[in-house]
Amino acid sequence: MRKKDHKKEIRETGRRVPQLSKEVYEGTLYKLQIELVKLQRHLIKFDDRILIIFEGRDAAGKDGTIKRITQHLSPRETRVIALGKPSDRDRSSWYFQRYVQYLPAAQELVLFNRSWYNRAGVEHVMRFCTADEYDEFMSSVVEFEHMLIRSGIKLLKYYLDISKPEQEKRLNERKKDPLAQWKVSALDEHALKKWDEYTLARDKMLVHTHNLITPWIIVHADDKQLARINLIKNMLSRLEYDDRDERLILPDPRIATTFEASFIEEGLLAS
Amino acid sequence: MRKKDHKKEIRETGRRVPQLSKEVYEGTLYKLQIELVKLQRHLIKFDDRILIIFEGRDAAGKDGTIKRITQHLSPRETRVIALGKPSDRDRSSWYFQRYVQYLPAAQELVLFNRSWYNRAGVEHVMRFCTADEYDEFMSSVVEFEHMLIRSGIKLLKYYLDISKPEQEKRLNERKKDPLAQWKVSALDEHALKKWDEYTLARDKMLVHTHNLITPWIIVHADDKQLARINLIKNMLSRLEYDDRDERLILPDPRIATTFEASFIEEGLLAS
Amino acid sequence: MRKKDHKKEIRETGRRVPQLSKEVYEGTLYKLQIELVKLQRHLIKFDDRILIIFEGRDAAGKDGTIKRITQHLSPRETRVIALGKPSDRDRSSWYFQRYVQYLPAAQELVLFNRSWYNRAGVEHVMRFCTADEYDEFMSSVVEFEHMLIRSGIKLLKYYLDISKPEQEKRLNERKKDPLAQWKVSALDEHALKKWDEYTLARDKMLVHTHNLITPWIIVHADDKQLARINLIKNMLSRLEYDDRDERLILPDPRIATTFEASFIEEGLLAS
Amino acid sequence: MRKKDHKKEIRETGRRVPQLSKEVYEGTLYKLQIELVKLQRHLIKFDDRILIIFEGRDAAGKDGTIKRITQHLSPRETRVIALGKPSDRDRSSWYFQRYVQYLPAAQELVLFNRSWYNRAGVEHVMRFCTADEYDEFMSSVVEFEHMLIRSGIKLLKYYLDISKPEQEKRLNERKKDPLAQWKVSALDEHALKKWDEYTLARDKMLVHTHNLITPWIIVHADDKQLARINLIKNMLSRLEYDDRDERLILPDPRIATTFEASFIEEGLLAS
Ligand SMILES: Nc1ncnc2c1ncn2[C@@H]1O[C@H](COP(=O)(O)OP(=O)(O)O)[C@@H](O)[C@H]1O
Ligand SMILES: Nc1ncnc2c1ncn2[C@@H]1O[C@H](COP(=O)(O)OP(=O)(O)O)[C@@H](O)[C@H]1O
Ligand SMILES: Nc1ncnc2c1ncn2[C@@H]1O[C@H](COP(=O)(O)OP(=O)(O)O)[C@@H](O)[C@H]1O
Ligand SMILES: Nc1ncnc2c1ncn2[C@@H]1O[C@H](COP(=O)(O)O)[C@@H](O)[C@H]1O
Repeated sequence: MRKKDHKKEIRETGRRVPQLSKEVYEGTLYKLQIELVKLQRHLIKFDDRILIIFEGRDAAGKDGTIKRITQHLSPRETRVIALGKPSDRDRSSWYFQRYVQYLPAAQELVLFNRSWYNRAGVEHVMRFCTADEYDEFMSSVVEFEHMLIRSGIKLLKYYLDISKPEQEKRLNERKKDPLAQWKVSALDEHALKKWDEYTLARDKMLVHTHNLITPWIIVHADDKQLARINLIKNMLSRLEYDDRDERLILPDPRIATTFEASFIEEGLLAS
Repeated sequence: MRKKDHKKEIRETGRRVPQLSKEVYEGTLYKLQIELVKLQRHLIKFDDRILIIFEGRDAAGKDGTIKRITQHLSPRETRVIALGKPSDRDRSSWYFQRYVQYLPAAQELVLFNRSWYNRAGVEHVMRFCTADEYDEFMSSVVEFEHMLIRSGIKLLKYYLDISKPEQEKRLNERKKDPLAQWKVSALDEHALKKWDEYTLARDKMLVHTHNLITPWIIVHADDKQLARINLIKNMLSRLEYDDRDERLILPDPRIATTFEASFIEEGLLAS
Repeated sequence: MRKKDHKKEIRETGRRVPQLSKEVYEGTLYKLQIELVKLQRHLIKFDDRILIIFEGRDAAGKDGTIKRITQHLSPRETRVIALGKPSDRDRSSWYFQRYVQYLPAAQELVLFNRSWYNRAGVEHVMRFCTADEYDEFMSSVVEFEHMLIRSGIKLLKYYLDISKPEQEKRLNERKKDPLAQWKVSALDEHALKKWDEYTLARDKMLVHTHNLITPWIIVHADDKQLARINLIKNMLSRLEYDDRDERLILPDPRIATTFEASFIEEGLLAS
Repeated sequence: MRKKDHKKEIRETGRRVPQLSKEVYEGTLYKLQIELVKLQRHLIKFDDRILIIFEGRDAAGKDGTIKRITQHLSPRETRVIALGKPSDRDRSSWYFQRYVQYLPAAQELVLFNRSWYNRAGVEHVMRFCTADEYDEFMSSVVEFEHMLIRSGIKLLKYYLDISKPEQEKRLNERKKDPLAQWKVSALDEHALKKWDEYTLARDKMLVHTHNLITPWIIVHADDKQLARINLIKNMLSRLEYDDRDERLILPDPRIATTFEASFIEEGLLAS
């Protein structure tokens, strides 16, 4: 089979990966959470520092995934960071500065729910930053990440990809769901209206900022449960820790897979 | 019935409040979480600031309760703070300083998983602070809290009370539960060994720092589900927000009730 | 001599204290700076924490005095804090919060060039805060300071008092002095126009916030050199350190003296 | 004249540049301070951000130079940062993190009295960091600085170079000078004992971290007054501002000059 065919298959099957039954999902999640606890114990023991970035459109499932990951972890060594919009002072400072203060110190696991990549996404599309600031970001971010890596931080980047119909469905559900009210944001309506701009921004971001040292992992997230399970598996498979259950943590490449530039032309990302 | 008898009844029934069925628990929690979402919308709208302090012995259920409260809230306006042990610099600074930076700004709900009351509990019992520092804390903390109140912060303080057998059971379970491994702390063994010192420290703390403006709410926490449900109800009943479901939020006073000095002599707290 | 007469004399002579010759001023300042170095060595050795607050109208001489104090001190253990106007986030936080982060840790000497008393002065007069915020400040600040004192911080408060003609002269000179350009502020014109409001605000501040534990020291500052010398002497005389030159550090009470409520009615403060 | 001869001349004359008379020094300094005030007004007006790094051996004159620069500047927009040794938490974080929080925001002029280059100097020589950390720093710092530049920060780096006899003289004088007591540090004795290691560390630092975008300016600092005057001139000549006195600000290249690798082999730096 030629490579191209293989990809095609991924894409098609990717959308046809069968749903998990409630039992399998819950059973697997439980086991993965045990692995996460082992991971945390390991990182505390060896003074490791881990930073995980979650990106994706509105309603892609970032919150829910992060909640499953942190559910049974020690609150003292785990931090979830979801920064609001920059203050005036932030705006006049070095762009990365407001994130830098939350980088993990020894023993810490930090999860960024959205991140500096806001500049390549919402800030760019919604014109919250200038074109110059955008360009400057695109040419600096990889270097910046490499510095963090060299300093010993383990950095993983996940892009949760959802299709337009799925996004629409979720944004509508939110409006009805009394528990998801707070997620309804002034920016939501733009998510759909500016779908194509967001698509283009995503493509440019992935192409420019994907690299061998801080690669993007694409997670097909139309199915929340598959997305969560496979994202966690990918995470565990890329981090060392004692007593790892090697068979459990193999992610399904049809759901979570390292980005390749050809994904774009081949339509493997939602558009 | 004389007042004393009434209390006696509370105590006795308090221990005999029937367990909730899984359905009732989950149904009620779901409805309370909707109320919490309304509360958050209200506090964002009116630029309110809320701080909730959770205290209690090891394994009293602070983590679990906080998780239920925050489960469906906006991560950007909700912060859970569980500080580690003070650094050298912290130790040489004003005691409240390291907490002050996490106080809620407008629109924020902050939950302290343990708090400045560490000084009256673990730091006092384990001799992590001097007797002078302890005394100084006891004579300052109420004043300090009143200043926060006057500045417009809404401050609620919960003490989750568990009995010795229940603590013992939970600490043992933790050791076996693969998901609770991280909770096993070097300080746990002292929790039981120093049970009586902790009891005395708790009594002194409650008596000295309970007051009309920042009262302590005692939550009988041997039954986790009853504790969570009633703590949240108490919380909701003490904070204003639009469209409040008044009948839902009445806490059972046998589970969550304002501290009174007589509770101690009457044996209404675990000892 | 009756007490009143004694005060009267202070006031009158206070305005007639003869100027220092350049030689005496420089010689004395030099010796006082040596004492300051001894003080700093002592505070580093004993892990002391010192906070000094400088208040006074525009052009009262706060900057110049602070510069003389810090001139030969270790930059690493000395911090001068001159905060700009509060950010939006500051405004929605506990008022003292933005100052708290700069409180001295062990071994540190911190000098506040203006301080939380802005709320009683410029913020009140220029209506930068509400009447409620003003009231709340006036009723909290002493308590707050006492907490700092009890926590071991040494806190000294100086009010540099200048007369209207002197202020006018200095503000005019500034405009001409190429080195003082930056001091020319949008608020300056109000300093003179609102002289009486500032006078009243000062009186209320002094009366409400003077107390035995954190007293205000009034420094008559129409003569800059006398003001600097005597403020430093007062400072040194109130802080313990080894090898103190006791004769050198006696301040002239006609220049630097502890506030008394009667000063106001007796016209001992500029008005 | 061949280039080499020209350099030779610089070096030799550099050591023979005649001292300034007190009058000329004070007159020039006064005029330069007026220029600095203009510069500050300009940077406030245009929301500029300026960072100046001062490096050099113990007693090279960093403190004194910084004091002359800041003497008449607005304390609110000028910050001098002299960090103490890293805390435990700092040590386990990204190396640049503790400096990042002090980077200039709009309108700010920040002066670093010692800087991240500690890692290439004292930390390397005194073995306060590992060889890996040193290597990582050397390969990251230029990239890091370039990011700051691209983000719009103006960054100037000065290395104040003094000869061994001069350093010895100054360190001895300090011990006697009652006003310089605090400068006497446990590390001083090593400054001379490890003179050669420091020389080598300096050479490696200059060679590896000098570049066109964030060049090192070498200031021959055996004569303090010449060093201060010419460093300030160099600073002013490299920053744009209105109404600049072009003739005043030309630095003497024999005192302040851009680093070139050949300086080392030609013995133009103290060794
Ligand atoms: N040396 C210390 N000094 C002060 N506080 C400490 C010290 N060691 C632990 N603590 C505090 O004691 C509390 C209880 O610790 P632990 O039982 O390990 O955690 P928890 O019950 O919160 O999971 C924590 O808030 C911790 O910060
Ligand atoms: N809008 C504002 N709200 C609160 N404080 C302010 C505001 N504007 C200025 N201030 C404060 O007023 C004080 C006096 O300002 P100004 O006269 O410009 O400075 P200086 O300290 O040099 O006299 C400063 O501490 C400044 O922070
Ligand atoms: N253990 C250490 N680890 C890292 N840096 C240190 C350590 N001890 C001192 N330093 C740094 O070495 C530098 C030189 O110290 P010192 O000679 O005492 O001060 P000065 O800046 O007055 O010359 C300072 O920046 C200090 O922070
Ligand atoms: N004006 C703004 N400038 C920069 N970022 C913003 C701005 N408004 C919203 N954002 C960011 O956009 C992201 C999405 O916002 P929301 O859809 O409201 O959750 C968040 O990370 C916000 O911080």
